[in-house]
Amino acid sequence: MLETLRKKIKNAEIDAYLISYGNRFLGQDVLEKEHKLAKVCGFTGSAGAFAITKDKAFLVVDGRYELQAQKQVDLKNIRIINDSPRLKTLCDILSQENIRKIGYDSWNYSVAEMEFIRRKYRDFEFIDIGDLVGLQNNNKIEIFQRSERFSGMNTEQKIALITEQLKEKKADYQLICSADSVSWLLNIYSCDLPCSPVVRAYALIDKAGKVTLFGENLQTDLTTKNWKDFAEILGAMSGKIILYDPHNTPEKFKNLLSPEALAGKCEDICQDLKAQKNSTELQGMINCHIRDGVALSKLLYWLEDNYKGKTELDVVQKLHELRAKQELFFSESFETIAGFGEHGAIVHYQPTKESNTPLVEGNLLLLDSGGQYLDGTTDVTRTIALGKPTKEMKRDFTHVLKAHIALAKAKFPIDTTGYKLDTLARAPLWEHGMDYKHGTGHGVACFGNVHEGPLSISLYGSMYGIKENMITSIEPGIYKENQYGIRIENLVYTRKVDEDSNFLRFISLTKAPIDKNLIDDYLLDEGEREWLNGYHRDVYDSLAAYLTEKEENWLKSACSPI
Amino acid sequence: MLETLRKKIKNAEIDAYLISYGNRFLGQDVLEKEHKLAKVCGFTGSAGAFAITKDKAFLVVDGRYELQAQKQVDLKNIRIINDSPRLKTLCDILSQENIRKIGYDSWNYSVAEMEFIRRKYRDFEFIDIGDLVGLQNNNKIEIFQRSERFSGMNTEQKIALITEQLKEKKADYQLICSADSVSWLLNIYSCDLPCSPVVRAYALIDKAGKVTLFGENLQTDLTTKNWKDFAEILGAMSGKIILYDPHNTPEKFKNLLSPEALAGKCEDICQDLKAQKNSTELQGMINCHIRDGVALSKLLYWLEDNYKGKTELDVVQKLHELRAKQELFFSESFETIAGFGEHGAIVHYQPTKESNTPLVEGNLLLLDSGGQYLDGTTDVTRTIALGKPTKEMKRDFTHVLKAHIALAKAKFPIDTTGYKLDTLARAPLWEHGMDYKHGTGHGVACFGNVHEGPLSISLYGSMYGIKENMITSIEPGIYKENQYGIRIENLVYTRKVDEDSNFLRFISLTKAPIDKNLIDDYLLDEGEREWLNGYHRDVYDSLAAYLTEKEENWLKSACSPI
Repeated sequence: MLETLRKKIKNAEIDAYLISYGNRFLGQDVLEKEHKLAKVCGFTGSAGAFAITKDKAFLVVDGRYELQAQKQVDLKNIRIINDSPRLKTLCDILSQENIRKIGYDSWNYSVAEMEFIRRKYRDFEFIDIGDLVGLQNNNKIEIFQRSERFSGMNTEQKIALITEQLKEKKADYQLICSADSVSWLLNIYSCDLPCSPVVRAYALIDKAGKVTLFGENLQTDLTTKNWKDFAEILGAMSGKIILYDPHNTPEKFKNLLSPEALAGKCEDICQDLKAQKNSTELQGMINCHIRDGVALSKLLYWLEDNYKGKTELDVVQKLHELRAKQELFFSESFETIAGFGEHGAIVHYQPTKESNTPLVEGNLLLLDSGGQYLDGTTDVTRTIALGKPTKEMKRDFTHVLKAHIALAKAKFPIDTTGYKLDTLARAPLWEHGMDYKHGTGHGVACFGNVHEGPLSISLYGSMYGIKENMITSIEPGIYKENQYGIRIENLVYTRKVDEDSNFLRFISLTKAPIDKNLIDDYLLDEGEREWLNGYHRDVYDSLAAYLTEKEENWLKSACSPI
Repeated sequence: MLETLRKKIKNAEIDAYLISYGNRFLGQDVLEKEHKLAKVCGFTGSAGAFAITKDKAFLVVDGRYELQAQKQVDLKNIRIINDSPRLKTLCDILSQENIRKIGYDSWNYSVAEMEFIRRKYRDFEFIDIGDLVGLQNNNKIEIFQRSERFSGMNTEQKIALITEQLKEKKADYQLICSADSVSWLLNIYSCDLPCSPVVRAYALIDKAGKVTLFGENLQTDLTTKNWKDFAEILGAMSGKIILYDPHNTPEKFKNLLSPEALAGKCEDICQDLKAQKNSTELQGMINCHIRDGVALSKLLYWLEDNYKGKTELDVVQKLHELRAKQELFFSESFETIAGFGEHGAIVHYQPTKESNTPLVEGNLLLLDSGGQYLDGTTDVTRTIALGKPTKEMKRDFTHVLKAHIALAKAKFPIDTTGYKLDTLARAPLWEHGMDYKHGTGHGVACFGNVHEGPLSISLYGSMYGIKENMITSIEPGIYKENQYGIRIENLVYTRKVDEDSNFLRFISLTKAPIDKNLIDDYLLDEGEREWLNGYHRDVYDSLAAYLTEKEENWLKSACSPI
């Protein structure tokens, strides 16, 4: 594949070509048949940036995919760089090479990113030569409407927010290119993706609130057009003003737009509205987390007596079965990570037939999973000791628990950024010279993307200010290569400390016991112990009624105070 | 004055005029006779931004100056805004007015700031109409050389770093417009400013390392030129390449530079070099903090028995006398803040003849002061109970102490930003719904500006990564309007946790007892108690030998473990 690409590069008279993990939706969900990086170099992770030159090739992946990439990729011909997998990183690398003309596909990079890159790397000439990889996806996309009973707000109300903005800004159209924004706005969903119910389509809304959907193979009563129509319609927009968000609109849009039209930058207002859950959405999240907690607790109970002779994939299968029995279950919210022993140290490990490992006594199982329910989305990680854990395991687990609690019980002013909060979870690990190479928390949709922007609590972090009724994960970890991985992840939502307060605190949504066999009691202070016992009390009270007697007895003990 | 300005604005055919607190050095030190805001509106604080239109006037000040501004300014004619006192804030305010042409003086705004402002506020036309305030300063500036014994690096070595950069970037000149960088680079200092020994001059360095100083009334053997020469020399630079830092070079530079010259942006490398202290500088900082601690401890001892009948200004005077007796003392490092009772709640209060208050039993004295010594610079705040403190005072003080300790004992990866660390000091106060409207820490020179960039630990925060051997203050506080203020400030430096570690920790430089009468022992946890007792042990061990017997006994008790 690399040689084929090099021929095409030569024909196009360019020095390098960029391949992104993304598609026309610049987002996180790329189907196997659409995964350009997998086709080009074998890397199947869900984030990465690739560049090929006449004689070299570079793959940038972040910490969680470093080990995986090393296993999947031909290291003789491709250099792996562990860094933020952004275009900027690739350009920094290419700056070391003797390169001037860089080819790329403008469908795969946002307007904002390309503006930044062009400004920063003035020595390069960026040439839009389109797609050189050539993957096809002809899946039909059946679209269904989500009930207001779950969304809490009907489509007309949401569309009115857009037409208001058009009126205020004296514009003719709003274009929305982000799949999760389009789905939220129109309350339309599909089974197109295995773990996210969003509809991958663009929406164009006019002043009267009329909506046109753009995409391929959309099955719906709504007015739909394909990508060719999209080009034609934009090309005919002479004299019109079109609002768009430069951060989630592909640069292609600007190339297609009639030169006599005016493209007006504006923020995607769906993002803020989605991030701050309405009361129906919040109640849905609370409800589905009880059902999800029931499924996970049943699994944990089952695991205790049955892990011997089972494999990672058996756990994945069993957990799926238990979740699928829950009311309103729709799908997993991402592929379950069940990493036993050293697999747990590979941050985004997912067991395959080849890697699948039997569970044996004396190591840890890291289990990160979640569900899409019609009323909400879950994402939870538990680390479980199989047999008696070592002292080191207990110490490490307890440090991760302390990190989790430090953030979970924090209070902070409204509008504090995730970048700032990130410190609270890391500081207890920093104290012992440890850290983790992934984010501390991400926003979560209420039925949508399990990773939902713009909220992000991370090391490099987002400057988005956190407000009331927002949802984030809290998920610090410790990873010991070739030994084990530990992560404790709950979803939480923000609530004012009291009605008149300018401060927020987190309320845990996730309901599942935290393995007490792994806690070194001696390392917890009074406040941490209180948090844990209070959390476990809530888990037991929320789930007990939905369990068999045996399960309930097990949970009672798993949740008893320390 | 407002009416005079409005006439000038009318004549210049502009809609508004901007006045900054700064001078040609964009820095923090502005003499009384140079203080434009004081002349224009009476506000004497050390940060502010002012704009006047045909019928309105706006003064932006940050939290620490809000109360002071309200007392000093004619509130009928000038609106005070509590916000970050930047040009951006003023432009946001002016965006609400019917305004297009904005006049300003390009000597007072940096290249970077004006580029940002012009890009962001495209509806405004910014017109450089020079200075309309017209303040004169004819002080002669005697320049002296600082010995390598204190600087640890001679001028030739430092200049070589600049000529290296010129060579590497194939440039002809480097222009440095930041007074503290020029002083550090050339090891030249003066008594021009009351509390900072820097020489306010620009330096132009050519490829051969020849240096020309620019300024007014400079008394030195070095080659000096005045501002008129500066304009002429820049105007004659045809065909040359001049490097400059857009963040501390006035926009005026670009207007003066020959159109045939090339201005090359580069970072002021002195900033990094200054921030990371060499071993001589660090040892000087350690040494001068012992002498400074001796002076402050003598003051605290004296205060205990003598405060009755004394005033804030008596404390300022007494502390000055004690510091002035110390070896290598040069000057205060800023005007001493001695705020008794409610004055302590005015964050940058400095007692004047008019405000001077007698010290009486039953309230707190906030004492923030520092010295310039030839071997280093100090900055320390202690809050002292006069008589028996109330329960509330003790609780508040202990919360501030917990906030201080949380940051002081933190460990963190090399290159963590101050913005990220800020959270650690605030979180213990956030827990109780409290916060403070000022930074948590600032860089400090070794004989130079007591507020030295680029290191900054603050709410809005700097993205500058903290490295080994850097110095910062740690100074959380609580301020209760009309009651009292509490702040506990130490200077600290960064050291690797151990030789091979990628983690840093802070070592306290400041040596002075923290008032135990104000500590509610019950609120401290084991780790905090240990930190405090360890700190006090070090204070006693460092200072005891330099005190009288009575003082030593007092210190022994003040530093005894809790």
